[in-house]
Amino acid sequence: MQWTQKVPAPKQIYQNSIYTQTMKLSNELALRQEKIRALMLQSNIDAALITCNVNILYTCGQVLSGYCYLPAVGEPWYFIKRPSGLKGKNIHYIRKPEQVAEILNEKGISFPETLMLEGDELPFTEYTRLANIFPSSKCVNGTPVIRAARSIKTDVEIELFRQAGAAHTRAYMQIPSVYREGMDDRHFSFEIERIMRLEGCLGIFRVFGQSMEIFFGSVLAGNNAEAPSPYDFALGGKGLSPALPGGLNGTKLEKGNTVMVDLGGNFNGYMCDMSRVFSIGKISEEAYKAHQVCLDIQSEVVAMAKPGAVCETLYNKAIDIVTKAGFKDHFMGTKQQAKFVGHGIGLEINEAPVFAPRVKQELQPGMVFALEPKIVLPGVGPVGIENSWVVNEHGVEKLTLCPEEIIDLENSIIA
Amino acid sequence: MQWTQKVPAPKQIYQNSIYTQTMKLSNELALRQEKIRALMLQSNIDAALITCNVNILYTCGQVLSGYCYLPAVGEPWYFIKRPSGLKGKNIHYIRKPEQVAEILNEKGISFPETLMLEGDELPFTEYTRLANIFPSSKCVNGTPVIRAARSIKTDVEIELFRQAGAAHTRAYMQIPSVYREGMDDRHFSFEIERIMRLEGCLGIFRVFGQSMEIFFGSVLAGNNAEAPSPYDFALGGKGLSPALPGGLNGTKLEKGNTVMVDLGGNFNGYMCDMSRVFSIGKISEEAYKAHQVCLDIQSEVVAMAKPGAVCETLYNKAIDIVTKAGFKDHFMGTKQQAKFVGHGIGLEINEAPVFAPRVKQELQPGMVFALEPKIVLPGVGPVGIENSWVVNEHGVEKLTLCPEEIIDLENSIIA
Repeated sequence: MQWTQKVPAPKQIYQNSIYTQTMKLSNELALRQEKIRALMLQSNIDAALITCNVNILYTCGQVLSGYCYLPAVGEPWYFIKRPSGLKGKNIHYIRKPEQVAEILNEKGISFPETLMLEGDELPFTEYTRLANIFPSSKCVNGTPVIRAARSIKTDVEIELFRQAGAAHTRAYMQIPSVYREGMDDRHFSFEIERIMRLEGCLGIFRVFGQSMEIFFGSVLAGNNAEAPSPYDFALGGKGLSPALPGGLNGTKLEKGNTVMVDLGGNFNGYMCDMSRVFSIGKISEEAYKAHQVCLDIQSEVVAMAKPGAVCETLYNKAIDIVTKAGFKDHFMGTKQQAKFVGHGIGLEINEAPVFAPRVKQELQPGMVFALEPKIVLPGVGPVGIENSWVVNEHGVEKLTLCPEEIIDLENSIIA
Repeated sequence: MQWTQKVPAPKQIYQNSIYTQTMKLSNELALRQEKIRALMLQSNIDAALITCNVNILYTCGQVLSGYCYLPAVGEPWYFIKRPSGLKGKNIHYIRKPEQVAEILNEKGISFPETLMLEGDELPFTEYTRLANIFPSSKCVNGTPVIRAARSIKTDVEIELFRQAGAAHTRAYMQIPSVYREGMDDRHFSFEIERIMRLEGCLGIFRVFGQSMEIFFGSVLAGNNAEAPSPYDFALGGKGLSPALPGGLNGTKLEKGNTVMVDLGGNFNGYMCDMSRVFSIGKISEEAYKAHQVCLDIQSEVVAMAKPGAVCETLYNKAIDIVTKAGFKDHFMGTKQQAKFVGHGIGLEINEAPVFAPRVKQELQPGMVFALEPKIVLPGVGPVGIENSWVVNEHGVEKLTLCPEEIIDLENSIIA
């Protein structure tokens, strides 16, 4: 595919078929709930009370303010505060969570012996309040269970990821057309953000973990890619303000430097992830070589990425290659180096599995991950690659289809 | 001020004077910590362990991954995971929070009898882990204490808000220039988002409460302003996807309709808040009248807004006026109505105080709030106003200075 080629528009299956304003429990939602239930049964958990936005989106098909009460066996119940006007089976409007127990009681539903709550996501006081509603229940942390279920995508989720990948690709293909001589990383990013929005990007960048935050993604030029940040993303950046110390910082796009675009591809809730590198004129031979090392890491790791492959092994493979090539000290940063080379993606940018040291988890069909070998060269900037991939029965399918060479912004063909 | 007039650029005091990469404890940071300590002493709390991003930004002057240990009496200690390379007094690098207790122990700091943790913000499992590090301490929820301290801004914070207000104003003044016939709310919003970014907006929209989320703010056109959303913002909107059911939804900007722009003015960490209404051609007489009712509410409420004014009284005043004018059923929404007319702003968009029923809190000098009387008219769209205000000794100072009439996008003077 050439940088000037058009990518077809995705169909809007997300809005028009599965997800409905009436919360009719389609097969898809039942399937997702079943995946959670199966794991609950394995852990002797009798019911889940789910309320965090991404988990509500996963189980109910839309973000709601309210609660999904999901027994391991039996029908799910929905207790909703907002929005008004939803109708459907087992839907009850409430003002406060204490009504959940009252209504279940009225309906003759016996309280669970073991109840799971979203312990890694719910604030302490909210968790405690919900636990107090079920005083006879033993409460356990359900976040790992739900995240495990979410880590294996359904066919519908994979199709949504394909559509996100196509839209993400369509947006990135237009990047060379917005470059103008004399730009800094801000102007470059703002024009790409606009293209992403025009292609349908929802903008919101959902991350797991209360200390993780980012706006739209990261555009890193020149030496700013070396700047350490408080956030645990693949690369840092100084940012424009101590109020958000990550990403672009006003670095001018200068001849002989690179700029890496890594904006979040949330077009339908699913966080597609892709990075591409651009240069201003020619860059050093070392930089082209380092980029090729990252492409080689991608090829080799992807060739190993099939059901049964161990995450740690994939990480170690990347480290092996980059060490032999002599770029280990510049891999995933210089002053501060990220300790992973890939990560699961889904409704959040950082899902299971993680390709990192000591992670013994094996790949399974239905997992979707981003692989992002990146090298930072002082005086030049970041090089490398990131694509999103679906694990299938035999290997992987690539979701993000832009060309992977470094594009010279001063000499690209603009349609 | 006319819509075509230029607003002067803010000085960059945020980046260049107060907040330093070496975390030197300026008077400003000491003052903020002192405000928290004073409230801790009132509540017999001996120490705070602070780690959530906004509270770290408040007490340390920048977002960090780590912990600020703040005793009610004695020196603060900083335990940092990321970024690398910070130097200063009482700064220690750690890998895990358990080291906080180890190092305090080594330094001969006695553990607190009562320790406050960010209970409304920290996930349950993180709170529990931190509490277990101090097994002899009684742990209490410190979020209300920190939020109370943050609700009274320092002079420096007020100056930062003035700069944010000026930048926000400068961006909004350019809104009429990006309108083109045939646009929908998406195209209109994306161009305004770009202007906001070019004027320095960091983009990130910080909200208190795990269930609240929004991208950049809200642009609501025509009947979409009536659509109920799960989020507790002033108005809803259907959104582009069930994955983010709030805000714009692709409504075409049609003759006789209005569109309200309410994007988050985060230019330096402080969330300035402003809404303005635009029309496509002339709108109904009723709509102009409803807009004037909102301006009247603003005038009357602002005239009462001085130290000692009770939030509930301000809310009731707004309800009185809108009820007498006959627009009560359209105030703050139609199908779903927000139950507040103003809210504190700061590092998050929803701080104390809130102008809502049963809120007995009194205004104090240094509070900063947004007042947003809005009316939604089916067949036309949203009208009304929102400005940001600082409470001073005698009354209030306005931060957001755009003209307040409804601007006809088809007939505005474009520079």
